[in-house]
Amino acid sequence: MERIKTLEWTEDGLLLVDQRKLPTELNMILLTTLDEVYNAIKTLAVRGAPAIGVAGAYGVVIASSEAIKEGGDYWRALEVKLEYLKNCRPTAVNLVWAVNRMTKVISENRSLSPQEVNDLLLKEAKKIELEDKEMCKRIGENGERLIPDGASVLTHCNAGALATAGIGTALAPIYKAVEKGKKVRVYADETRPLLQGARITVWELMEAGVETTLICDNMSASLMSKGKIDLVIVGADRVARNGDVANKIGTYNLAVLSRYHMVPFYVACPLSTVDPNIASGDEIPIEERDPVEITECMGRRVAPYGSKVFNPAFDITPNRLVDVIITDKGVHTKPYEKSLPI
Amino acid sequence: MERIKTLEWTEDGLLLVDQRKLPTELNMILLTTLDEVYNAIKTLAVRGAPAIGVAGAYGVVIASSEAIKEGGDYWRALEVKLEYLKNCRPTAVNLVWAVNRMTKVISENRSLSPQEVNDLLLKEAKKIELEDKEMCKRIGENGERLIPDGASVLTHCNAGALATAGIGTALAPIYKAVEKGKKVRVYADETRPLLQGARITVWELMEAGVETTLICDNMSASLMSKGKIDLVIVGADRVARNGDVANKIGTYNLAVLSRYHMVPFYVACPLSTVDPNIASGDEIPIEERDPVEITECMGRRVAPYGSKVFNPAFDITPNRLVDVIITDKGVHTKPYEKSLPI
Repeated sequence: MERIKTLEWTEDGLLLVDQRKLPTELNMILLTTLDEVYNAIKTLAVRGAPAIGVAGAYGVVIASSEAIKEGGDYWRALEVKLEYLKNCRPTAVNLVWAVNRMTKVISENRSLSPQEVNDLLLKEAKKIELEDKEMCKRIGENGERLIPDGASVLTHCNAGALATAGIGTALAPIYKAVEKGKKVRVYADETRPLLQGARITVWELMEAGVETTLICDNMSASLMSKGKIDLVIVGADRVARNGDVANKIGTYNLAVLSRYHMVPFYVACPLSTVDPNIASGDEIPIEERDPVEITECMGRRVAPYGSKVFNPAFDITPNRLVDVIITDKGVHTKPYEKSLPI
Repeated sequence: MERIKTLEWTEDGLLLVDQRKLPTELNMILLTTLDEVYNAIKTLAVRGAPAIGVAGAYGVVIASSEAIKEGGDYWRALEVKLEYLKNCRPTAVNLVWAVNRMTKVISENRSLSPQEVNDLLLKEAKKIELEDKEMCKRIGENGERLIPDGASVLTHCNAGALATAGIGTALAPIYKAVEKGKKVRVYADETRPLLQGARITVWELMEAGVETTLICDNMSASLMSKGKIDLVIVGADRVARNGDVANKIGTYNLAVLSRYHMVPFYVACPLSTVDPNIASGDEIPIEERDPVEITECMGRRVAPYGSKVFNPAFDITPNRLVDVIITDKGVHTKPYEKSLPI
């Protein structure tokens, strides 16, 4: 599970796995400009809320270096660049969270030289990466207790090692359970439209030797009705104070189906995914993405030209359908307003 | 809506739209041997329970001609051929229903010459086709009353003109409602893994000028929670006496989501889809299809080599989740054991 290094800071820039090419190609790309970081996040070369946060933090370092090279007003240039970076994807809170944390380093060190600030920013980004790894480990340990030996676990999208700098969020409890010698079988939703489940989760779990069965998103109810799913674990892109969860489109479908079939539905995410500024899911902005993600599949046309398409990247699962939220700080139960330590 | 001719008997054989190529290519293929008919049904060049029935009936004619040409024992050869044809796809009852009806013509005319039987078979197949067209029209008229002016209707897979010899089953009420001047908006599930919704339903509805929005299968709950779906209509591949419905995988998902959101869930199919030999959905065999349908998308690899896959073509929706069944004979309500006139 430690074999895949989702992203890595090098002297030349930010090196990361190009997740658009998985599973047929394992390519690394090197990001050396802010535009490259922005595009990598926008086009999902790097994705998964925690990984976007870490990439965003290193993006700030790259932005700072650019501002130094440009030779103008460093502080003003950096401010503009970070505003640009923050708005790259609207739903995941981790990007904004990471950029804000880096911004704090900038504003607290206005008396230093740009190069000194740059060094501090790199230090802070590395700290965010390390914390992310530690956070994954803790989510894994906290969630592992909820997975019985012999369990079949359904997951959606990819909230694994490739969504973080560590062993993942939703997949972390599975990795930890397997590490402890439990037998765990995973069913992975392929996760339309971009097939992160088929392309990334199945690949990652197979690499780690976890028994995995790929299904289409519309097959879960059928499996649940046959008693083949013991529990569902998914990640989160943003959680409201009341425990409403924004996550990959299809998560809410799955939550409703889980409730109907009395299958426990768990969300696993770092506590930093809980947005203290958001009271409920209604306030979370939902990114709508390019229709071509649905009208084409792997570059091949599948729908008629001129098709009208609805393509939200996320949906909101109301807190009542979420049985527990697993974070690096513990396993939180309803009411989440009280149990989430934010 | 009458423009698309799903299939047509010609002097040279059975001519049909190759639905595997839609929507990027509108190709007709000519089937002149039983093997070609079998493969066309197996590989979904022709699909949709009623269309499979009509294609199967013409397949019997082709089988009969082959048996004549072969010059051996006509009756025995034909029997073997029809057994082969019947087992092409196990879930849709219409294929078996059509072949059995053709078999009746054969067994009732054992005193005639093979050529005379062949002529009667062609007559019977044409009758089945005509009845199919009439059946679609009646389903449309019966179901149209259930669609309010201004309604947004969600459908799954393709149960339209391209699934029948007429104007479809699930789409027939929509076509009739539009014909009557009602404003109807359709949301079409893309329907993984073979994308019949994206490829066929959207194409067919756009051709007919019906406002249609394509979504992924995992987006329906999100739309329902926002009140954007007024009702769901789907087709059926086989219905048990108690009203349990076998239909394209994902139908049961949709039925559960509809119930949770209090959205009416309707099934539209010819009465011949109700199998008098099947008491409940538990007895309906479910076809499992090639994993490659999920591990590849339009010929491009999307999952790792060696992925384990679960790929049922259909699921069973229990009668309690089906609000009404619309057939050519009327609109049937629960309990279906009593209301279905079989």
